[in-house]
Amino acid sequence: MKKILFIHGANLQYLGKRQPEIYGRTTAAEADQMCKEHAQERGFDLEIFYTNHEGEAIDKIYQAKELGVHALVMNPGGFTYSGRALADAVLGVQIPYVEVHLTNHYQRNIHSEIAHAAQAVILGPGVFGYLLALDAALHLAEK
Amino acid sequence: MKKILFIHGANLQYLGKRQPEIYGRTTAAEADQMCKEHAQERGFDLEIFYTNHEGEAIDKIYQAKELGVHALVMNPGGFTYSGRALADAVLGVQIPYVEVHLTNHYQRNIHSEIAHAAQAVILGPGVFGYLLALDAALHLAEK
Amino acid sequence: MKKILFIHGANLQYLGKRQPEIYGRTTAAEADQMCKEHAQERGFDLEIFYTNHEGEAIDKIYQAKELGVHALVMNPGGFTYSGRALADAVLGVQIPYVEVHLTNHYQRNIHSEIAHAAQAVILGPGVFGYLLALDAALHLAEK
Amino acid sequence: MKKILFIHGANLQYLGKRQPEIYGRTTAAEADQMCKEHAQERGFDLEIFYTNHEGEAIDKIYQAKELGVHALVMNPGGFTYSGRALADAVLGVQIPYVEVHLTNHYQRNIHSEIAHAAQAVILGPGVFGYLLALDAALHLAEK
Amino acid sequence: MKKILFIHGANLQYLGKRQPEIYGRTTAAEADQMCKEHAQERGFDLEIFYTNHEGEAIDKIYQAKELGVHALVMNPGGFTYSGRALADAVLGVQIPYVEVHLTNHYQRNIHSEIAHAAQAVILGPGVFGYLLALDAALHLAEK
Amino acid sequence: MKKILFIHGANLQYLGKRQPEIYGRTTAAEADQMCKEHAQERGFDLEIFYTNHEGEAIDKIYQAKELGVHALVMNPGGFTYSGRALADAVLGVQIPYVEVHLTNHYQRNIHSEIAHAAQAVILGPGVFGYLLALDAALHLAEK
Amino acid sequence: MKKILFIHGANLQYLGKRQPEIYGRTTAAEADQMCKEHAQERGFDLEIFYTNHEGEAIDKIYQAKELGVHALVMNPGGFTYSGRALADAVLGVQIPYVEVHLTNHYQRNIHSEIAHAAQAVILGPGVFGYLLALDAALHLAEK
Amino acid sequence: MKKILFIHGANLQYLGKRQPEIYGRTTAAEADQMCKEHAQERGFDLEIFYTNHEGEAIDKIYQAKELGVHALVMNPGGFTYSGRALADAVLGVQIPYVEVHLTNHYQRNIHSEIAHAAQAVILGPGVFGYLLALDAALHLAEK
Amino acid sequence: MKKILFIHGANLQYLGKRQPEIYGRTTAAEADQMCKEHAQERGFDLEIFYTNHEGEAIDKIYQAKELGVHALVMNPGGFTYSGRALADAVLGVQIPYVEVHLTNHYQRNIHSEIAHAAQAVILGPGVFGYLLALDAALHLAEK
Amino acid sequence: MKKILFIHGANLQYLGKRQPEIYGRTTAAEADQMCKEHAQERGFDLEIFYTNHEGEAIDKIYQAKELGVHALVMNPGGFTYSGRALADAVLGVQIPYVEVHLTNHYQRNIHSEIAHAAQAVILGPGVFGYLLALDAALHLAEK
Amino acid sequence: MKKILFIHGANLQYLGKRQPEIYGRTTAAEADQMCKEHAQERGFDLEIFYTNHEGEAIDKIYQAKELGVHALVMNPGGFTYSGRALADAVLGVQIPYVEVHLTNHYQRNIHSEIAHAAQAVILGPGVFGYLLALDAALHLAEK
Amino acid sequence: MKKILFIHGANLQYLGKRQPEIYGRTTAAEADQMCKEHAQERGFDLEIFYTNHEGEAIDKIYQAKELGVHALVMNPGGFTYSGRALADAVLGVQIPYVEVHLTNHYQRNIHSEIAHAAQAVILGPGVFGYLLALDAALHLAEK
Repeated sequence: MKKILFIHGANLQYLGKRQPEIYGRTTAAEADQMCKEHAQERGFDLEIFYTNHEGEAIDKIYQAKELGVHALVMNPGGFTYSGRALADAVLGVQIPYVEVHLTNHYQRNIHSEIAHAAQAVILGPGVFGYLLALDAALHLAEK
Repeated sequence: MKKILFIHGANLQYLGKRQPEIYGRTTAAEADQMCKEHAQERGFDLEIFYTNHEGEAIDKIYQAKELGVHALVMNPGGFTYSGRALADAVLGVQIPYVEVHLTNHYQRNIHSEIAHAAQAVILGPGVFGYLLALDAALHLAEK
Repeated sequence: MKKILFIHGANLQYLGKRQPEIYGRTTAAEADQMCKEHAQERGFDLEIFYTNHEGEAIDKIYQAKELGVHALVMNPGGFTYSGRALADAVLGVQIPYVEVHLTNHYQRNIHSEIAHAAQAVILGPGVFGYLLALDAALHLAEK
Repeated sequence: MKKILFIHGANLQYLGKRQPEIYGRTTAAEADQMCKEHAQERGFDLEIFYTNHEGEAIDKIYQAKELGVHALVMNPGGFTYSGRALADAVLGVQIPYVEVHLTNHYQRNIHSEIAHAAQAVILGPGVFGYLLALDAALHLAEK
Repeated sequence: MKKILFIHGANLQYLGKRQPEIYGRTTAAEADQMCKEHAQERGFDLEIFYTNHEGEAIDKIYQAKELGVHALVMNPGGFTYSGRALADAVLGVQIPYVEVHLTNHYQRNIHSEIAHAAQAVILGPGVFGYLLALDAALHLAEK
Repeated sequence: MKKILFIHGANLQYLGKRQPEIYGRTTAAEADQMCKEHAQERGFDLEIFYTNHEGEAIDKIYQAKELGVHALVMNPGGFTYSGRALADAVLGVQIPYVEVHLTNHYQRNIHSEIAHAAQAVILGPGVFGYLLALDAALHLAEK
Repeated sequence: MKKILFIHGANLQYLGKRQPEIYGRTTAAEADQMCKEHAQERGFDLEIFYTNHEGEAIDKIYQAKELGVHALVMNPGGFTYSGRALADAVLGVQIPYVEVHLTNHYQRNIHSEIAHAAQAVILGPGVFGYLLALDAALHLAEK
Repeated sequence: MKKILFIHGANLQYLGKRQPEIYGRTTAAEADQMCKEHAQERGFDLEIFYTNHEGEAIDKIYQAKELGVHALVMNPGGFTYSGRALADAVLGVQIPYVEVHLTNHYQRNIHSEIAHAAQAVILGPGVFGYLLALDAALHLAEK
Repeated sequence: MKKILFIHGANLQYLGKRQPEIYGRTTAAEADQMCKEHAQERGFDLEIFYTNHEGEAIDKIYQAKELGVHALVMNPGGFTYSGRALADAVLGVQIPYVEVHLTNHYQRNIHSEIAHAAQAVILGPGVFGYLLALDAALHLAEK
Repeated sequence: MKKILFIHGANLQYLGKRQPEIYGRTTAAEADQMCKEHAQERGFDLEIFYTNHEGEAIDKIYQAKELGVHALVMNPGGFTYSGRALADAVLGVQIPYVEVHLTNHYQRNIHSEIAHAAQAVILGPGVFGYLLALDAALHLAEK
Repeated sequence: MKKILFIHGANLQYLGKRQPEIYGRTTAAEADQMCKEHAQERGFDLEIFYTNHEGEAIDKIYQAKELGVHALVMNPGGFTYSGRALADAVLGVQIPYVEVHLTNHYQRNIHSEIAHAAQAVILGPGVFGYLLALDAALHLAEK
Repeated sequence: MKKILFIHGANLQYLGKRQPEIYGRTTAAEADQMCKEHAQERGFDLEIFYTNHEGEAIDKIYQAKELGVHALVMNPGGFTYSGRALADAVLGVQIPYVEVHLTNHYQRNIHSEIAHAAQAVILGPGVFGYLLALDAALHLAEK
């Protein structure tokens, strides 16, 4: 069974409460539930990890390497803007990586400093994009 | 049954032959076949349209509006770089739009002039991204 | 009697339906009617031409030269952003040219790649600007 | 009867003498005469005001508000380049505003810092543009 | 008793009427009254000066130097965008200077060309910022 | 009684020792003492928090939300340059926020990536600016 | 016998009439005649193709691939400025490509968006450059 | 006898007191005296004019034209940064113009928006540059 | 005996495994061993510290100051791109600082946001650069 | 018989040995031989000159003018990047000038600071471009 | 008697022949004669030096230092664009330096990379500027 | 015994006299002596070469290749700013190259146009950096 790690970066534990007109009203707990059900349906092992500390995300990625995780999904949240150390970590461990954002960055003039490290990037639509990202990760893990 | 239109822009009929080290070896015909099977599985109506003329793509989008298409998927191919007229057409008809590219633009320093008109953007992984884009389009059509 | 050609570029046949909060609710048909009545009042011959293909607009301009058109009015619509080939065509035929847009580009951070080829540029107010543009074109044709 | 105020900014009292190869040989007095005759024909009240002091132009705009002026036309002349205080004044009084220049700025690499405050912008052709601007202003005043 | 001069630049006499959704509904007269009461409470001498002419503001600053003013507060209003001559005047007289704006420029992409000449800069909150600016000026005057 | 949280970001515990020619000789302890006395005088509850970890500052802000803090003051110190995750946290919790810096950034060519999230920004003069920031925060808390 | 295709892009059918002070007075017909005579002298098969539609040029290039053309020469004319879809087509078919322009772009501040796809680029001198381009194409075809 | 007008722009009446470490300790009165003596020696008529209002400087230039002034010298002072209206006035009257600054702008990263209107530009050394500028103006007046 | 602290920033514990084609195959453990032997040979006290958390690196630098460390060497690794808070910490404690990178940044278009705080910067060659950096630090410590 | 001078700039004497994967394996001696044979075939006098000193190239160009050289060909090599003094020399002597490079600069992001002084520019293909450049120069010499 | 060295950089020996519509028709020999007569009148020792080699100009400047030259005048000609090594030499020897150009660079969009090393900069008018530059140099030598 | 060539570029023969507050007071002769002693200690053959002519430095590098030099050290001095021809020479001969500067360029906003050609770059500390550069060069020569 494939193991997938889903990292949520800075500010994402507050999903559904923070600027819902931009990010939607689905809470972090509800989104996690959707992802877990999707993992069950598709038949893969899913770990979900939240942190506001970029250093912890980096530590987690090296541990994932040690533990044999097959693919990484991340919504970097607040790390998006200057997370190049995080990108280097992803490139370093060479686990297939799918980056996902809840919104279309082309409409908001945001540039992800991490996305160049990804095999695939999913921008929306909303929390449904999380499921697409997991599908992409699973596809990469199985290749 | 939901109707989805998938437009392939300039140079994409040559898929699988053009720079396969970048775009992969799946041919346009094989990719179309995959998409059609996916449409059957998911239960939606799929029209596939290829053109090297930006004007034809714009005409097609207005016709889609007249014909009641529920969602639009497009890999703009060669229109990516300066297709703002195409973007205006998409914004004009207000059909949900998912943009898809075979590769991760963040690795290739390419900016899509159309993507701001999309509800979701999928960058890779390879032709598998086409299926993710169709899933996203179906999700948007059903909302 | 002076002959004036009015070209409408990409997306303009959809006027009144496309983003009416920006472009207003007057339809293309209504705008055409206003222009024709204005032509009758002022006493000039008016041809109106719509296209979503930049190449067709260029072809039309060379034909206008052959047919002795005295002045050209154009709302380039979607060609505004990268229509330098169109601008070269206008410069090439040396027919007086008035460019018109329905909105004030200074408020929308849009740059016309064609306007440097014009003797006059009219930005709004709304469809009324079409009549001002025809007046300007007639003035240039009579000089 | 509608009241329209036409402000001429820095250097425009010297029209017809200053760089006539760019701005034409019609003098300020002749241009004023043309505008007055146009006002009589169209049936509106026209005040013409010249100044080389941006502060005076701003004062004038606030007075116009007090006096119930229905629309403002301005050729900002030398204020074009850094007249953002003037633009703020126009935005502040909320009188419809038409900006007019004698030449096509797209050919001269000039950016107006005031034009974003306008409902319409007229760039040429020459002094004839003044009449178009007055027509536009009257149209806005009557709406 | 310390003497403080408060200069209000272009467009500020119209406060409360001009774009109240941005600048608030407190009028210039009400703001002046608040400042005068604050001066009485804190025990300093306050002169308030309004002008739409940058040259007059510069003249005023040199007079303030002659008259022994201890600190200067200014909301440059419309001079903010290109008031470098004003900044040079402030640097020239070497009176402590506090710059104040009613809004947070970081939200509006405005750059003050004068603020580098200040000992302190206060951006909002609204008219209450005027009182903070006077407190800062008094603090500087007393040092 | 209003609760205000004052966060000091990276390097600020070293205040008074680090580059005193820029930041002054008042130590962090002395500055804290001044702020506490000010809180007593004005009658509000003040918590002071120091951290060199941006993630801890973000965590703190979400806790403040849970604890019903009425206003937030922050000198982001070393987080100023790339603290957009911090800015998103502030925007997320929607507690009134006043940003304060000891020096005038307009003189030092520094841009705060957090300040757009603030209701007010205070740049100096020195540690006295802390008291102004607390006054602004109290004013916002009471609105 | 080697087959060479020479594509002339937007506005080039008007050569000799359009801005002759820039592009010279040789007409398109005369230039074609020179090229055909050169083909006879050098002993290669030459097809000449004119179009104002970028899509047609792309279609033509894929047909050339099917028909076994050995080398491609193109003066992209009006496609120069934003013809990246055209460049992708050239890169896709992998036929040796020589780009030619009638003038020296280094003197006119023009950047070709297609030239990076070429094995050789010839900028002038005038129509004589067409013959140099054909020589270069023949050289590449024979390698 | 040639007539030369020397205009001193914003802040220059304060010369010798304003930032003497940059501009030197010679006062405006002393500099005027040096210039007058130089005029007597060289045998030309010199008028000196000070203003902090850019509009007054523009008015003065048009009067100079009427009065037959042969050459203009100007130290624009605070008008240097955004005085393009002033530059247009100089270009309009076509009186030979020499611009002079007390310091070398290449060391201070200052760009004069007026200097392109000059026949000669003198940057320093200090007040001695005034005499060089007068010599240059006399030379131009005599040509 | 001089005390030198060597800080390794984000991702460096993975040296030798992460992108060895760029960073080489020497592992972190081997590099540490080389440095320790070098310390013994040269006769200085060496502490080595690894962290993925920028905040920890900052804390460590303030502790070093307290403990009387004579010189600091750092390979900031992933902190290189946006570590200005770290740079401020180094400037604050005023311990001589040598920055070292394993590769030549001039070949990789990377800009260190920390290097301006250093007395010396060593870019490669590979791990041997670590020994050069320690030599430089010892030289600075002894001055 | 026409005289043509071919200047080879910095680093070109090392052709065939320096980065052959970019510049090819033809040596300078072989290239010279090809050019001489071409000169014999076409019937013109050819002088070849190598230098690593930009000053010597400039001196040579003025001598060429004195000696009646009819056309100049140059591969500026290492002078390409900042050889504006060389460009001024070429413009000064007004000998027809053809610039040639062995590679297509559009693929390598190199900008020639000299090419604006040329009547024609040839970028590749490889050393064969030298013969095209000589043909172009002969054509210009004979006009 | 003061010793002044006047260096003429690349292309200036060709003065009067090279682009006379820009640089005028006075030859280098005539300009030298004017300067020598000026030296006699003013009573200083003048050496004139021409070179097309930036290295020779640098060598000359160090020799000037050894020989006790009191002031340096230079028209850097072709060295203007990238002569920063020359600027460093001037800064190094600390001889007063006046830079002179025959034309007004503000009209030609040229930036001197050397002028920041000067005490004074003279831009035109034409060769007369040489005499002004010598006056400035003498003034500096006598201080 | 390894042969190392140390090239000193423009202005470096004046070391110790030129701007000692930036470059230190060690003279060129003293620095050479330090390097020679270091060569003796480490046991390698050292040639030191000074020049103000970039062309001579290029010639020297090609000679070094012929003479079998094992490694190159260079402080390019005044060639730093635009020495791309020099960089091409270094890349051409493929001798290991270490670039060294006396100061930390990150503090001075200087970009070396040559450093991308190096295996290692040493910025300071002062003349001691020369010894580090020689160590690096020896290390590279021995690999």
